[in-house]
Amino acid sequence: MDKQQLIIRIKKKKSFLCIGLDPDLSRIPVPLHLDTHENTVVQFSKNIIAATSDLCVAYKLNMAFFEALGPKGWLVVEKILQEISKDQFTIADAKRGDIGNSSKMYARAFFENLGFDAVTISPYMGYDSVEPFLKFPAKWVILLALTSNPGSEDLQLRKLENGNLLYEEVIILSQKWNMSEKLMYVVGATHPNELKKIRSLIPGSFILIPGIGAQGGDLRKVISAACTSEIGLLINVSRGILYGTESPENYFKAVRERAKVYQTIMQQFIP
Amino acid sequence: MDKQQLIIRIKKKKSFLCIGLDPDLSRIPVPLHLDTHENTVVQFSKNIIAATSDLCVAYKLNMAFFEALGPKGWLVVEKILQEISKDQFTIADAKRGDIGNSSKMYARAFFENLGFDAVTISPYMGYDSVEPFLKFPAKWVILLALTSNPGSEDLQLRKLENGNLLYEEVIILSQKWNMSEKLMYVVGATHPNELKKIRSLIPGSFILIPGIGAQGGDLRKVISAACTSEIGLLINVSRGILYGTESPENYFKAVRERAKVYQTIMQQFIP
Repeated sequence: MDKQQLIIRIKKKKSFLCIGLDPDLSRIPVPLHLDTHENTVVQFSKNIIAATSDLCVAYKLNMAFFEALGPKGWLVVEKILQEISKDQFTIADAKRGDIGNSSKMYARAFFENLGFDAVTISPYMGYDSVEPFLKFPAKWVILLALTSNPGSEDLQLRKLENGNLLYEEVIILSQKWNMSEKLMYVVGATHPNELKKIRSLIPGSFILIPGIGAQGGDLRKVISAACTSEIGLLINVSRGILYGTESPENYFKAVRERAKVYQTIMQQFIP
Repeated sequence: MDKQQLIIRIKKKKSFLCIGLDPDLSRIPVPLHLDTHENTVVQFSKNIIAATSDLCVAYKLNMAFFEALGPKGWLVVEKILQEISKDQFTIADAKRGDIGNSSKMYARAFFENLGFDAVTISPYMGYDSVEPFLKFPAKWVILLALTSNPGSEDLQLRKLENGNLLYEEVIILSQKWNMSEKLMYVVGATHPNELKKIRSLIPGSFILIPGIGAQGGDLRKVISAACTSEIGLLINVSRGILYGTESPENYFKAVRERAKVYQTIMQQFIP
């Protein structure tokens, strides 16, 4: 999916909501469990997708939760992707990145074999660890810049000799790379003050924002700080939509209602 | 496996060689290919292990090459691990790291489900992204410090305001973490001058050193710079052992001979 297609879908659906599929067996209500863990996760995810598809423009699959199912976890990912309509932007939240020939293999895994539109990448190993992903046509790299977790202070918010914070340096440096127009960035909603500054560094780039909901980020603050005329935002909510205390018969209706709350706020910002 | 067990095995085998399993279908000789890609990779890896097991103390599985096989790649990993003797130290070269609840899932995937002894982790997201891995008893985190690729200059070799290079800061900071005695570090053989300095920062830690062979690192220089009385090194060779131009009937004999060259150098440094 290219940038214009994504913007068109956002404006049409009046939503820049990305729903994070983090299927956690310990949080999926017991009455929704099936014969195997794999079937439980596939069916739960299918129901989430069916309940929310018109309210969001993207699904983000957190690979950790699928890999935790054991060696069959990747088969589960494949099955879930088949349930997602082709007009959704699909993100493998995989936080990969390795030396060139290994990154090329990861890019094949996510872009060719599984067919994701985008994959999240850690910048620590530098340009040649990211380049193989950028070379795939119409696919996206979502580079970690400033993450939503407390550990973002350990390195990302440290100042370099040149005066930039490390995460700023990641953004500035990567914008000089070949094919930088195929980069998006991860910036956690837990850093609203930094978002405005980040937007000024990358006025034309999409920013994927996790950390709304369970992690405490404020949706309106985030949108006000970083929304552009092209929107330029994908706001991810995972646990804040997926999990509730409703009975099985009302569960996915409640999922839809939670997603609708986010979408309703978002549509106010879409011309 | 704990540190003393690893040291005992190194001294007994007179080797601190780690063999990297990066099974690349485009480099496995065509006559060794079987009916499916998965079977080819399993059989090739089995033969590598059978040919080298007495010459090395560790096997490192590069997850990129298995994930590139498609959703069945993880089943291939599981099969290969069954071929590796329990007295080998097994490393998932996975370069993971995510917010706490996701890292916990990755830790389960690699330590519980697959049973690896260690996993490589990117430090970019900070302490809470590493902590869930450290909590597993008798398991190891191998933290990326200074990698072997050209992109290591982009961020890892940048100076912070406090005068430390970023990779030094990673080492110094992580040594203050809880359970830091369960950390090893990745330092590429392509940085022999930095190795001595790094050893002085972590006199008691194991260092996993990739970059020998195909990437051009010099084995004797590396050992001289960083070997301790407890050895403290795992030196990884992947392509430099796995791939050659021999005929199928001599292929794994040649693999063994290449591994033996590295082991023979190593034994000179083991008292």
